[in-house]
Amino acid sequence: MAWNGRHFLSLADLSKEDIIGLIQRTSHFLEAGDRHEPDAPLTGKIVANLFMENSTRTRCSFAIATKRLGGDSIDLLGSTSSASKGETLVDTALNLEAMGVAGIVLRCAEEHGPWEIAEQVGIPVINAGSGISGHPTQALLDAVTLTRYFGKPDLSGQHIAIVGDIAHSRVARSNVIGLTKLGAKVTLVGPAELLQSDLGCETSSNFDDVLATASACMMLRVQFERNAKVGEDYKDNFSLTEERAQHFAGAILHPGPMNRNLEIDDKVADLNGSPHNLILSQVTNGVATRMAILEHLIG
Amino acid sequence: MAWNGRHFLSLADLSKEDIIGLIQRTSHFLEAGDRHEPDAPLTGKIVANLFMENSTRTRCSFAIATKRLGGDSIDLLGSTSSASKGETLVDTALNLEAMGVAGIVLRCAEEHGPWEIAEQVGIPVINAGSGISGHPTQALLDAVTLTRYFGKPDLSGQHIAIVGDIAHSRVARSNVIGLTKLGAKVTLVGPAELLQSDLGCETSSNFDDVLATASACMMLRVQFERNAKVGEDYKDNFSLTEERAQHFAGAILHPGPMNRNLEIDDKVADLNGSPHNLILSQVTNGVATRMAILEHLIG
Amino acid sequence: MAWNGRHFLSLADLSKEDIIGLIQRTSHFLEAGDRHEPDAPLTGKIVANLFMENSTRTRCSFAIATKRLGGDSIDLLGSTSSASKGETLVDTALNLEAMGVAGIVLRCAEEHGPWEIAEQVGIPVINAGSGISGHPTQALLDAVTLTRYFGKPDLSGQHIAIVGDIAHSRVARSNVIGLTKLGAKVTLVGPAELLQSDLGCETSSNFDDVLATASACMMLRVQFERNAKVGEDYKDNFSLTEERAQHFAGAILHPGPMNRNLEIDDKVADLNGSPHNLILSQVTNGVATRMAILEHLIG
Repeated sequence: MAWNGRHFLSLADLSKEDIIGLIQRTSHFLEAGDRHEPDAPLTGKIVANLFMENSTRTRCSFAIATKRLGGDSIDLLGSTSSASKGETLVDTALNLEAMGVAGIVLRCAEEHGPWEIAEQVGIPVINAGSGISGHPTQALLDAVTLTRYFGKPDLSGQHIAIVGDIAHSRVARSNVIGLTKLGAKVTLVGPAELLQSDLGCETSSNFDDVLATASACMMLRVQFERNAKVGEDYKDNFSLTEERAQHFAGAILHPGPMNRNLEIDDKVADLNGSPHNLILSQVTNGVATRMAILEHLIG
Repeated sequence: MAWNGRHFLSLADLSKEDIIGLIQRTSHFLEAGDRHEPDAPLTGKIVANLFMENSTRTRCSFAIATKRLGGDSIDLLGSTSSASKGETLVDTALNLEAMGVAGIVLRCAEEHGPWEIAEQVGIPVINAGSGISGHPTQALLDAVTLTRYFGKPDLSGQHIAIVGDIAHSRVARSNVIGLTKLGAKVTLVGPAELLQSDLGCETSSNFDDVLATASACMMLRVQFERNAKVGEDYKDNFSLTEERAQHFAGAILHPGPMNRNLEIDDKVADLNGSPHNLILSQVTNGVATRMAILEHLIG
Repeated sequence: MAWNGRHFLSLADLSKEDIIGLIQRTSHFLEAGDRHEPDAPLTGKIVANLFMENSTRTRCSFAIATKRLGGDSIDLLGSTSSASKGETLVDTALNLEAMGVAGIVLRCAEEHGPWEIAEQVGIPVINAGSGISGHPTQALLDAVTLTRYFGKPDLSGQHIAIVGDIAHSRVARSNVIGLTKLGAKVTLVGPAELLQSDLGCETSSNFDDVLATASACMMLRVQFERNAKVGEDYKDNFSLTEERAQHFAGAILHPGPMNRNLEIDDKVADLNGSPHNLILSQVTNGVATRMAILEHLIG
């Protein structure tokens, strides 16, 4: 792997080859299954999970990945930490470094948070979601999931629709970077007020038109917790309904948590037996993806 | 042991022999003491503690039991998880399964929560308290505590009083099932408005009458957090006061946390030297009981 | 080491020799670096971190120290525990002991909390901050930091200023005891309304006067969370400003979290390359100090 970055802040920092290298290493971990790694590259190392915003899957995914590599995690959650006494993110990070943790996994509301602490600390920083600016480990696990689905090392020739609340989505931002680097064409789909035209790819408000040529469709959560507002016709126009899914033969993804029967119908979300519904595969792949990242930076 | 259940949802699913088998295995762990199990049947396995309601003893008890068996826990607590983004219990559970956890320990407000997720996931689910519908690991540890106190493998011939806020008590519900299966006679005692006549056992509002023939007395917490209301005469009629305790030669239990000097007097609660006060034995036995359950389901 | 205390509640319980013994053992751990201890004196042991007040560094510091010694921690945080159901501290502690934990690290608002539970439980209790009454592990790590800075086994001949919100500071209270035992002269500095004259050492409201003869200066956090109030001239009179720091050649400490640009200027706080700024050394030394304490009590 050519990538020598000390941190994992944005997929923009990685070359196509770097991304493919991490995808291959992730596949190794997936094939090894749920077992802990015998080599245990994180033995004796402690990773700090600094999560200033609530999270289930990302925090647990990192904790499990750390454990499988032989390491241990400590959790610092926003509501129970000294952040409630007004400590800055950078001071918290410097303290963690001084305590000897091997790396910091950060989720925060500040869009520049991971970069700010990466500038100040001498240990690896992993961006686990920074405001709406990015969520690169999610984008990498999505790339893992899609390349495994298509059975090819990259995504050249694929047309991937990212659908819904683009405006509030760090997942969309990071995926545009990752998917494009891997050669895919990306179309952002949503109502005009939730679209974003500055991400360097095509946009559309006609979901059915885009679905007709897409080989994968990534549904996004409408982020009410970020004050997203959707009209009454949102479900008609931008939901992956049972009817739309019946006419679509490509891959279906959702980063979770889902607003069931808003952006995706129950019956589509629950097609877990279907080879096209990759929603839970994303979660499984997420643990292995984080193992690859942790091993690379901290192992 | 005949019991082949994949989950531990209710003692109603277990035969008397299943319960006795788990009690015997618990005794093995109690005799082994605080040491970690050398065989460590949970080595390399991660158990998810999904606690949507606050808890001290049950969550810690499971965490310690998991650790003693060689495994690791991850905690998902209601206030810091994606439940705050509206994710369903089932989706959270499916995500945990997809991440490769070996089992889910669930505490939730929903009375059917553990059954709902057990239907959907392929890993063991343990009910650690579901609304007011049940708390079967508490009932099993109570059965362990009582059989050890009486020195017999079952509870035939015993008369056990369960006293206080029956209406809001998942502990009472599960204990009625477990104690009855083990051959005990159970009487539910409390003021009419906190009693429940549909649990298949005798009820009484005369505590002193029942105490006269009971061999064990299980005091319940008045659950103000579930809006229990008690009159001014509650303490006179239904508290295990020092005076009542002086005239009672049987076992005294309380699942905790206690409302001291409401359902039980300080001086009765603190008789830790007495062989009849089993309140802290329950806690000790709880860790070993959860080891037996985890070993059976996940080991 | 002569000290045979079962608990670590206050430095008042330790002799000068006890303190020096723990400082020496801390230095051993610091020289061993971030590695886990090969002997692993806490193997198979579980330490309960009972933190009723929010904390980042102290809780993480204990968790990391425990892990480095081969043990495991369980966290009980105020907002997610049964304390929210009204359980007393002593009952929570008795429950943890009954579950078989090897020791309890307690942070609480109650000034007598650690003593109350130490009287009732048979396992070691470590005071990790009790209201404003004391924070002895912080004072021990400060003593470690200062003796290493001065390169001597004790602090005889040193003059140490403790500056700022003395009234609300458990750190000041414990440091007065520890620093004095090690032979230092201590002066408490602050505005009259935040000073305390009953701690057995000199007080002053003239920071510059005291700085002129001090060899170390410990800045305190203004504890707004304890309703501290400071006037507009606080920064002029009691802040370690860039200008004051330029005229001061001694050691600079702060227990964190810092109110930047209130009690200490950004440029002073961030002089991490300077041998005089010991703020992050305190944090590093804190982990090793807690290892020495845990090993002594529980190992």
